[in-house]
Amino acid sequence: MTLALLTADPLSSALGLLALLWLAAKVGGELAIRIKVPAVAGELAVGLAMAALHRQFISFPDVTVNVAADLLANLGIVVLMFAVGLESTVPQMLKSGAASLRVAFIGVAAPMALGLGGAALMLPKGTPFGVNLFIGACLCATSIGISAQVLREKCAANTPEGRIIVGAAVLDDILGLLVLVLVSALVRASGGGGLPWGSLARTLVLALGFLAAALTLGRWVTPRLFHLANRLRSEQVLLPMSLGFAFLLAYLGHLAGLASIVGAYAAGLILEPAHVRVLEERELHSLEDLVHPLVSVMAPLFFLLMGAKVDVSTLFQPKTLLFALLLAAVGVLGKWIAGYGGGKALRASVIGWGMVPRGEVGLIFVAAGAQLMLNGAPLLSAPVQAAIVGAILLTTLAGPIGLAWALRASPSREAVRGGHQGS
Amino acid sequence: MTLALLTADPLSSALGLLALLWLAAKVGGELAIRIKVPAVAGELAVGLAMAALHRQFISFPDVTVNVAADLLANLGIVVLMFAVGLESTVPQMLKSGAASLRVAFIGVAAPMALGLGGAALMLPKGTPFGVNLFIGACLCATSIGISAQVLREKCAANTPEGRIIVGAAVLDDILGLLVLVLVSALVRASGGGGLPWGSLARTLVLALGFLAAALTLGRWVTPRLFHLANRLRSEQVLLPMSLGFAFLLAYLGHLAGLASIVGAYAAGLILEPAHVRVLEERELHSLEDLVHPLVSVMAPLFFLLMGAKVDVSTLFQPKTLLFALLLAAVGVLGKWIAGYGGGKALRASVIGWGMVPRGEVGLIFVAAGAQLMLNGAPLLSAPVQAAIVGAILLTTLAGPIGLAWALRASPSREAVRGGHQGS
Repeated sequence: MTLALLTADPLSSALGLLALLWLAAKVGGELAIRIKVPAVAGELAVGLAMAALHRQFISFPDVTVNVAADLLANLGIVVLMFAVGLESTVPQMLKSGAASLRVAFIGVAAPMALGLGGAALMLPKGTPFGVNLFIGACLCATSIGISAQVLREKCAANTPEGRIIVGAAVLDDILGLLVLVLVSALVRASGGGGLPWGSLARTLVLALGFLAAALTLGRWVTPRLFHLANRLRSEQVLLPMSLGFAFLLAYLGHLAGLASIVGAYAAGLILEPAHVRVLEERELHSLEDLVHPLVSVMAPLFFLLMGAKVDVSTLFQPKTLLFALLLAAVGVLGKWIAGYGGGKALRASVIGWGMVPRGEVGLIFVAAGAQLMLNGAPLLSAPVQAAIVGAILLTTLAGPIGLAWALRASPSREAVRGGHQGS
Repeated sequence: MTLALLTADPLSSALGLLALLWLAAKVGGELAIRIKVPAVAGELAVGLAMAALHRQFISFPDVTVNVAADLLANLGIVVLMFAVGLESTVPQMLKSGAASLRVAFIGVAAPMALGLGGAALMLPKGTPFGVNLFIGACLCATSIGISAQVLREKCAANTPEGRIIVGAAVLDDILGLLVLVLVSALVRASGGGGLPWGSLARTLVLALGFLAAALTLGRWVTPRLFHLANRLRSEQVLLPMSLGFAFLLAYLGHLAGLASIVGAYAAGLILEPAHVRVLEERELHSLEDLVHPLVSVMAPLFFLLMGAKVDVSTLFQPKTLLFALLLAAVGVLGKWIAGYGGGKALRASVIGWGMVPRGEVGLIFVAAGAQLMLNGAPLLSAPVQAAIVGAILLTTLAGPIGLAWALRASPSREAVRGGHQGS
């Protein structure tokens, strides 16, 4: 008999499971806070524990397979990135553009090189170069959701460092895309054949084209769109319209090959307080006040389910664990070096730690690597996959802890101007 | 080629579709308001139009099959009923208990009797009594979501009439359950065999037992539970915990055989301002302020998808349409009579019109009737099914318009004390 929790009716199963997940997330978050660690780390750990419980006791609900929880979690991270985008404006973002670009480039190159070296060190001799390179590539893309949450918790989303972290994460999403196309092509081409420059160029043009269009055309259209919305006589227009706008850009971003969260972040950047002031006054609530409750119920589900993706039992075999620890260490080191790309006046450790968490993109790389074939075998073997996933998890646990520590160790005068939503 | 909107990735399809649905819902609501009809009616009509467009132009997205929209819609109605429950307390509810019970009983008996008569009049001679009885039964249960939304829009949820409407709707959900068990048994037993008194008694005991337990044990547990939550040091506790509580009761209510919305409404009733005051002060937002944005984005999806369930082309055949109109008329008349059960001091027309919308429960009856076999044929033929569904739709369109009219025609002094969320 599996899980008495789940009934034949999917809606009612979802209701029961969501109630359980919220309770678990809050308990995990509370325990984390009591040991002075960000709530996000506790939510990740609780997810990991729940997945382990399910593997041990089959009657414990499997939190990873529920469509409803998965959907709300993924929509939640889209809404979170929209909220983060709302806290900055396009000019602020462009001001830190050069610094973000430096951080993104170093933050992709350094972990890739270090990961490649680590893999060459640990894996048996004769392992193809493509394998080592692919392992390095899995460490390159930052998962911004976790750092975004910590930055909001600590009111640091709107500091120069906060903006550079988010900007660099958006850029390394694009770089990550290119790396995946390039490395996969290299592996496929190892039996002969040239590099697919055409497909590389297409990927780059689409992604940059989307961002450029959003930041120019979008900024022209948005005030006109919301000016139109101002003239509606309906009630409760602000949130559905704003969220619809964010989801539309997330959708278009996905069509351009980017992660949905990049589009949602762009929507938040474009949408400026002046555009929605009339609606905010009429509805007696600011847009941030309206978005905040959505984030508070949906984002914890994302972090919990992310933790639940890790299979502890595979990870806890000595050799795999050691490899995972090494990859995590070089992953942290690589991003920490990238922090110095931000510029002299800024806190390199805050930027570096903010870039540490890896996540969805890394997991997508692993999944792609498992499907690529090299000499008749999967490019990434099962233990190597487990080690990379373990390393990604370790960075997601270490990232928020390190970022919170870095923020405490060197408080910025700008922090007091930060967003108020984390309060 | 079907709908360019949908991509291979379910998340990004959901993002695109949700953006479209919010835009459509707001346009429909706006048009409705401009012709002085409640926004809900416009959202229903837009859903109907979108479904018709899909049937005409196959490349137009089919809004009824998207898992994400369906889930958010159904969670939305659960959250809406929780919000409605929050506006009242258990003692207020019990005060209007006797009146609610009278309204519920008349509101089930009158439409059933009138529907039975109407069916006997319209259907060919020799139609079995069971068919006519079942058609009458399809008209008995109120769908409270629509009236709840209108009551909130008009700040009338916390008037005596508002409380009686919601209370009677909860009770007629239970009566509806009993009627379905009873009528199905009668049809099955028409070939011999007695009535299943045991299963009837079990249904009644479970449903009433859940409500009794929620209103007694629940009221004892809730303050203690939230007192515990007060001691958490985490941020953003109030909404996830409250929503978790509502979803838990919705889940338990479903286990007891009730609609999920009944459990969520009970959770709202039980949860009193005093329980959450400490958390509200710490998080600088009232619980109603936090729940309100969720309702504003999710509830329109429910009304839109409800409209989309109707197939206009089947309905618009003359005979079917005539039968649907007759059933809708007797459906309105039956509930309008029930309004007089509320007591002399109250506005019978407000109560009656508030009970008019039929919905999910009626549709569930139709589905059950389509599966029941009588003399080797389905109990309800396809045209009869279309007519009943059409009648249900007509009541959902007529209900909010009638209720808004009744509220305007006889404003209550109590209205000014009503909830502020509709503002």
